[in-house]
Order: sequence, then structure tokens, then C-alpha cells
Amino acid sequence: MTIKLGLVGTGTVGGGCLDILRNHREDFKRHLGVDMEVVRVCSRNPEQAEARGVLHLFTEDFNDIINDPEIDIVIELIGGTTAARDVVLGALRAGKNVVTANKALMATFGDEVMDLAREKNLEVGFEASVGGGIPIIQPLKHSLISNEITSVMGIVNGTTNYMLTRMVDDGLSYEDALAEAQAKGFAEADPTADVDGFDAAAKIAILASIAFNSRVKLNDVYTEGIRNITQLDMDTADDMGYVIKLLALAHRTPEGIDVRVHPTMLPKAHQMAQVNGVFNAIYVTGDAVGETMFFGEGAGAGPAAAAVMGDVLEVARHMTLGIPPVVGCTCTDNLPIVPMEKLSTKYYIRFSVADRSGVLAAMAGVFAKHGVSVRSVVQRGSAQHETVNLSYVTHTASEASVRRVLEEIGGLEDVLRAEPSVIRVED
Amino acid sequence: MTIKLGLVGTGTVGGGCLDILRNHREDFKRHLGVDMEVVRVCSRNPEQAEARGVLHLFTEDFNDIINDPEIDIVIELIGGTTAARDVVLGALRAGKNVVTANKALMATFGDEVMDLAREKNLEVGFEASVGGGIPIIQPLKHSLISNEITSVMGIVNGTTNYMLTRMVDDGLSYEDALAEAQAKGFAEADPTADVDGFDAAAKIAILASIAFNSRVKLNDVYTEGIRNITQLDMDTADDMGYVIKLLALAHRTPEGIDVRVHPTMLPKAHQMAQVNGVFNAIYVTGDAVGETMFFGEGAGAGPAAAAVMGDVLEVARHMTLGIPPVVGCTCTDNLPIVPMEKLSTKYYIRFSVADRSGVLAAMAGVFAKHGVSVRSVVQRGSAQHETVNLSYVTHTASEASVRRVLEEIGGLEDVLRAEPSVIRVED
Ligand SMILES: NC(=O)c1ccc[n+]([C@@H]2O[C@H](COP(=O)([O-])OP(=O)(O)OC[C@H]3O[C@@H](n4cnc5c(N)ncnc54)[C@H](OP(=O)(O)O)[C@@H]3O)[C@@H](O)[C@H]2O)c1
Ligand SMILES: NC(=O)c1ccc[n+]([C@@H]2O[C@H](COP(=O)([O-])OP(=O)(O)OC[C@H]3O[C@@H](n4cnc5c(N)ncnc54)[C@H](OP(=O)(O)O)[C@@H]3O)[C@@H](O)[C@H]2O)c1
Repeated sequence: MTIKLGLVGTGTVGGGCLDILRNHREDFKRHLGVDMEVVRVCSRNPEQAEARGVLHLFTEDFNDIINDPEIDIVIELIGGTTAARDVVLGALRAGKNVVTANKALMATFGDEVMDLAREKNLEVGFEASVGGGIPIIQPLKHSLISNEITSVMGIVNGTTNYMLTRMVDDGLSYEDALAEAQAKGFAEADPTADVDGFDAAAKIAILASIAFNSRVKLNDVYTEGIRNITQLDMDTADDMGYVIKLLALAHRTPEGIDVRVHPTMLPKAHQMAQVNGVFNAIYVTGDAVGETMFFGEGAGAGPAAAAVMGDVLEVARHMTLGIPPVVGCTCTDNLPIVPMEKLSTKYYIRFSVADRSGVLAAMAGVFAKHGVSVRSVVQRGSAQHETVNLSYVTHTASEASVRRVLEEIGGLEDVLRAEPSVIRVED
Repeated sequence: MTIKLGLVGTGTVGGGCLDILRNHREDFKRHLGVDMEVVRVCSRNPEQAEARGVLHLFTEDFNDIINDPEIDIVIELIGGTTAARDVVLGALRAGKNVVTANKALMATFGDEVMDLAREKNLEVGFEASVGGGIPIIQPLKHSLISNEITSVMGIVNGTTNYMLTRMVDDGLSYEDALAEAQAKGFAEADPTADVDGFDAAAKIAILASIAFNSRVKLNDVYTEGIRNITQLDMDTADDMGYVIKLLALAHRTPEGIDVRVHPTMLPKAHQMAQVNGVFNAIYVTGDAVGETMFFGEGAGAGPAAAAVMGDVLEVARHMTLGIPPVVGCTCTDNLPIVPMEKLSTKYYIRFSVADRSGVLAAMAGVFAKHGVSVRSVVQRGSAQHETVNLSYVTHTASEASVRRVLEEIGGLEDVLRAEPSVIRVED
């Protein structure tokens, strides 16, 4: 029995999948008892198909794949939530199993996809949607199921981690770091999804949904990107013993799921502070297992295609054995999302203020009034003589109180020179 | 349908399993559609069973479990390779699925166990046998299957890693570090399996078997423990920018599988050099995925029981769905084991020699004669005035040549004061 594959998308990841199958088809037969063959490929780009040696299988219309009765598994690697959604839902409707690397799709329409798969008794694999080649979705759906997972957090966007690493280690500005990431092919021409945190938000939504058995969607994730991180904040963090990372966090709390993506100051000695460049690291804490960590390359043709083909092989193995899907949608609870205002954490807040007597006292008064207790204040002069930078680190405070502090200090118009910089702190 | 469990062994891990099922039975029903119940427990120790609230299920004879027609899954948590082997093989013969945490058993009789399971169409789960609660066997058998794995290496024994950490960080002697590990319950009264490297050897044998699809047994693993590591070697390593760790390594080479356990000097900046205390870290390198790392607590009631119960739930899920074993024995190739003499690596060699002129030159001659090129030599005086310590680090050299060097220098009787210390170096 040869399992027939239809590949939609012949770009970076699609090309990687073709390479893996070319290199290892015989190995898969011998080791897994699974024979697979790509019988049709689709993209908008015949040159790309030709370069990958699959022009003879090429079509520009993905319906040719969805409607091909011979095809058993459709691999969706085009990205986005429009055509990709049509491909995935269309394939399921036509009775085909699906493997996708599409985090945006799964974090937005995951419920629709998984419901249809259940109705049709079909499988949907999406390991590659988070952490590139790092196994994380399978471990959460299998190895770790005896635990109540209490948190999942990590560095899940390689592009921004690369940029932040270059900014810290080599003093690059945000703009230069971005330009370099683009030149190296890590960041897209439109870097919005990465630098504004949406890519990380989609990933943590997917992980939280599985870890907590409750649907979390992209829109549920409070999201801040790294656009506003300045070299000054990096230097101040460094002086205080911190490193700034873009973290994706999801916690199970008595009030529901606390899920967010934002720049975070971590102590330099923290293991996550040492995850540099394009690497990803995901921490999962369970009530029995304690803390486990999964680390590796979060993106790239090889890692992403390894995860896609791992899913394809798993589905093909089930088909070859004649067994139905083992694990489908895992969202069996319906937990609320904790609103961001309810968050309690520590904050770094930097104000740029006029260097005038009385400012410090006025600001201290505002912090005290709203019950936000300050752990440390550092004053730094700035290039413009009449301005100083005041960097506060608070004790644990509620987001709501901190917002009131920001608003009221923002009202002290005569002292404020620029928007304050606010970064959450984890210890 | 309620899946009936028989538990053999009510010690640390057995107790952890009972706790997990007590805490989460309802969650497992809701999330996984699996209901499970422990119906019989066995150990030699009724007080232990009583303390765990299962005296009413207690028997001293494991045959009562093997022969109980009601029992679906037997959980073996007694350890060792005698009674445990009888339990595991007996359960399979009686048509029951098995879950075990027993690395010694799987690394010694894994082929027998897996063959019988295949013959009987039954499942054997052994995730807990390596890395405590860290998912590593499932990822190798599932998520990573699209890769040709080129190496698996790591720190897989928490006891020795704890001891080495205390020796480096706090200057403890080997003896004091061992006594402390025993007092904290990390090391057994008889610490042989840990300090002599056999526990790590069993674990790397299991990992290599799966990663390379070829049976590797405990006896195939070249094994050196940490008994001979002195504070002097630690200090010298530190001076040279290294940390000493007990590594388990398995490499796929053109000549076959290179698999070994020995103390290893790692550069301080290496990620594995920073894995401290009882934590485990396992690196897997695949041709597509690149390097991935799995990290967590390698032992303890919670982590080990989490892995055991993860396997139990997986088997129970398959039984509930009425599906046969998905993955059995993965040893579909038969690769040779590379003999240790064929190894090429870098070496740290410390000699304790009489402080006499001509010694250094004589020794340099021996290195040169056998083609072992020296990268650096450090001379350190010792407390006894007439003795000096000479620490060599070689360039890559063959194990065979280094052994000839050691033998010939060992012949220079008038200069040698003590056995040389030999530690392999990874950069
Ligand atoms: N790259 C990574 O490292 C990585 C890692 C993990 C997950 N992913 C995910 O994997 C997916 C693919 O990423 P990629 O990096 O391979 O993207 P890519 O290199 O841009 O390739 C996308 C492919 O899809 C084709 N395509 C786009 N829209 C199409 C449409 N409407 N109809 C037919 N074909 C269409 C493209 O053809 P044209 O060239 O003609 O547009 C191209 O062949 C995305 O969901 C991404 O998030 C990527
Ligand atoms: N502890 C860990 O962190 C850990 C982690 C991973 C894997 N493991 C593995 O898990 C297994 C169990 O370890 P453990 O730490 O739970 O050991 P343990 O605390 O020493 O418990 C062993 C249990 O087995 C019973 N037992 C021993 N021999 C028996 C026999 N012949 N018949 C009936 N019962 C017998 C013991 O009863 P008595 O008290 O009467 O001897 C005790 O209840 C071992 O294979 C170990 O390698 C342990």
C-alpha cells in the first residue's frame, strides 16, 4: 500500500518536505513499514516546482488536489488564513487527512478545522506550527497527558529573538537588527507578524489550547511586540542584571487562562535568558513532572519540514495499520481567559522627564497613591541636558494599578518628555 | 469500559503513580475518554501498601497479578533484571500490556521483551526508563521519525550530575559529594550503578537502539564512571575553561554505532556544561531537524510516575479505542558497534611525575612517537615537593594511540608516581 500525498505550497517548507521524502523513502519503508509518494503539487509558481524537480506533478489549482480521489493526505504549506483555510477544510470535506504548518490558521480557525476532522473521522497534524522541528505538540498530546499542566512559556519566535540577541550582544539598533534579520532571510519583507508579536501569539494560543484542554484563540492573547524596545532600555536592563526577551506565556490560574506575549525582563542567569539567536525554547510545567524544557531551531526548511513529515508519517502509519485517528481535538474544557487588567506581575517603567526639582517626589506620590510599591529607581542623564531617565522596577502590582499610575503621571504634562517604556519583569 | 491496572512495586515510583491516578482519574475520563482503576498491587512490603492506602489490594505474589484475568495492564516498578523480567515476560505471556520504568531490564533483555510483545500483539511502554519525566522515547518513536538521527547525547544520570556539580561549585570531595547525594535520597545505599556509569549506559543503550533503529545492549556500551575524578582534575579543567560532566554519547558513524559513557570535559560556555544538579538534558541531532534538546528532572517520584502514567494512559487509550499497538520494536537494522579503540577524540591526560629534569622531554618523545599531537601542557606543583602534575590536552587522536602512549609512559617507572587521569574532551 502506497500512501499518496498532495502537496500545496512548494516554498521553503514544501521544498524541505520533498527533500526528506527523496532522501528517506526507502528508510521509511524499512523502519516504519510505510511507503509514501507525492503524486501532485500545487503553487502559483511553476518555476519553483520545476526547480524542485516536480513540474510533472504541478497544478496551479489546489482543487485538483482536493478533488483527486487517489490522494490520501493533503499537506498545506501556503500559509495565511484564506486560501489555506479553503485547502484544509476542502481536503477534510473530501475525506482526506491533513498536515499543516500553519499557526495563523490553527490559532484562528482551529476549532472549525478540528470539528470537521472529528465529524469526518480524519486526522489533522500541525506539529510544525509551533517551534519548527522541536517536538512539542506530540509530547503535550501524548507523553505529558498524566499531568495537569500549570504553565507553558517560552521563546517561540526566532526572528525577534535573533534581533534582540544582536541588540544586546552587539549594540545594534532595532532598525539595523531588523534589516539584518531580513537580509539573512529570517524576517519577511513585511515583518509585522514577527515584530508585533502575532506569530508568537498564534503559537502560544495553540500550545495553551492543548496544555489546558480549552480553546484559546489568537484574539484571546494579549500581545505586545518589540517595536518600542530601545537601546536605552536594553542598557538599563543590563545594569540591573536583566536581559529583555519576547516571551509567550500561558498560565493556568484559579480565574482561568492567563495568556500573553510581551517583552519581558529576565535575570541574566535564567536559562531562558541564555537562549539566543534563532533558537526557540519552550518550558512546560506539570503538577507531576515539574519543569521540562524543549529546545531547538524554531524555523528553517529542515526543522519545519522534519516536523511536517513526522506528522505525515504518523498519519500514514495509522492508515497503513488501518486504525482511526488516535487523538483529535483536545479542548474538552471551556475555561475563561483572564483579562489583562487582572494580571499581577513586576514592572519596569522608564519615564523620560524634565530635570526639575520636585519631579521625583511628585512621581513617588502617584505610585504610592495607587498602591504600586517601588523596588528600585535608577536615574540616568540623557543626551539632552534638561531631560533625565527615571527607571522604576516595582514589586508585584496589578496591571490595572500600573495603568492608573501611567495615566496620572502622563497627566503631569510639564514633566513628561516622551511616552514611558513599560516592560514586565519575571524573576 | 474501565481499564484495570495491576501495579507491581509500591516504592517511590509506584507511590507516585497511585497519587496521580487518585488526583486525576476524573480528568482522564473527561479529557481522554479513558477510565482506569488499580485493582491489585504487589510488593514484599505490606506496610508500604498500607501507607499508600492500597492494603486491600495487596498481594506478595506477583503471579496473583499476572494470572488475574481481569487485569489489562501490568505496571512493573520493582527494578532489577530478575523478578522484574519474570513479571514483564509473564504479563506478556498472559496477554497483558506492560508499562515499565526499568532501564536495566530494557537495556539487557529489551529484545526478548519486544519480540514477545510483537508475537502477542501487545504494547510495552518504557518512557520512564530514560530521563525521568522528560519525554524522549515517544518523541524518538514519533515526532522525529522523518529524520536520520546522527547522534544522541546527554546528561542522563542525576545522581552523578549532582555530585559533580557540588564538587565544582563548592569544592566537595568525591566522598563528601556521594555522602550528601545519599543523604538527600538521590543515590542508593549501593551507588555502583550511578557512579560507575551503568545507569547512564543502560539509558544510552535504550536511546541508541531507538534513534538508530538497531539494537544496542548494555554490554555494547563502553562505560567509565566518575570514581576517579579528583578535585585536582576539576581545578585543572576549570583553569583551562572546562567543566567535567558524565556524558552518555551515541553517534551514527560510517563504521557503525559509537556508544559510550564517560566523564567528559566540556567548554564552560557549552549548554550542557550549564546543566547542573539532578537535572537531565538530552540532545538529539537529526539530518533535517538539526539539534534539539530535551531538559528536565531526571528522577524523583513525580517525574518518573508522570512518565509511567503517560504510557499507561496511551495504552489505555488504544485499548479503549480498540486499536492494536501502533509502534513496537523499532530495531529494523543491524548496525555494528564501533570498538572503543577505533574512537578518535581529544584527550586530557594528567600524569603525576617525579620533578626531575628530562621528564618532560622523555614524555614529549613518547607522545610524538605514537603520533599523538599535544595542544597544551600545564605543569602544576603538588603538595609533595618532589612531584609535579603534568596535564596534557591533545589534538584529535585515536584511542588506540593514546593507550599506547599511556602504556609506554607507564613503563617509565622512575618518573611515574600515580595512575594517570584520562578524560575525553569535547569542544
Ligand atoms: N519557513 C519556516 O521556517 C516555517 C516554519 C514553521 C512553519 N512555517 C509555516 O509553513 C507555511 C509555509 O511557509 P514557507 O516558509 O514555506 O512559505 P513560502 O516559502 O512563502 O512558500 C509558500 C508557498 O505557497 C504557495 N502559495 C501561496 N499562496 C498560494 C495560493 N493561494 N495557492 C497556491 N499556492 C500558494 C507559494 O507560491 P508562490 O511562490 O507563487 O507565492 C509558495 O509555493 C506557513 O504557514 C508558515 O507559517 C514556516
Ligand atoms: N526513583 C526514581 O526516580 C526512578 C526514575 C526512573 C525510573 N526508575 C525505575 O523505577 C523502578 C522502581 O524504582 P523505585 O525508585 O520506585 O524503587 P523502590 O522505591 O526501591 O521500590 C521498589 C518496589 O518494588 C518492590 N519489590 C522489589 N523487589 C520485589 C519483588 N521481587 N517482588 C515484589 N516486589 C518487589 C519493593 O518492595 P520492598 O520495599 O519490599 O523491597 C518496592 O515496593 C526501577 O526500575 C527504577 O530504575 C526510578
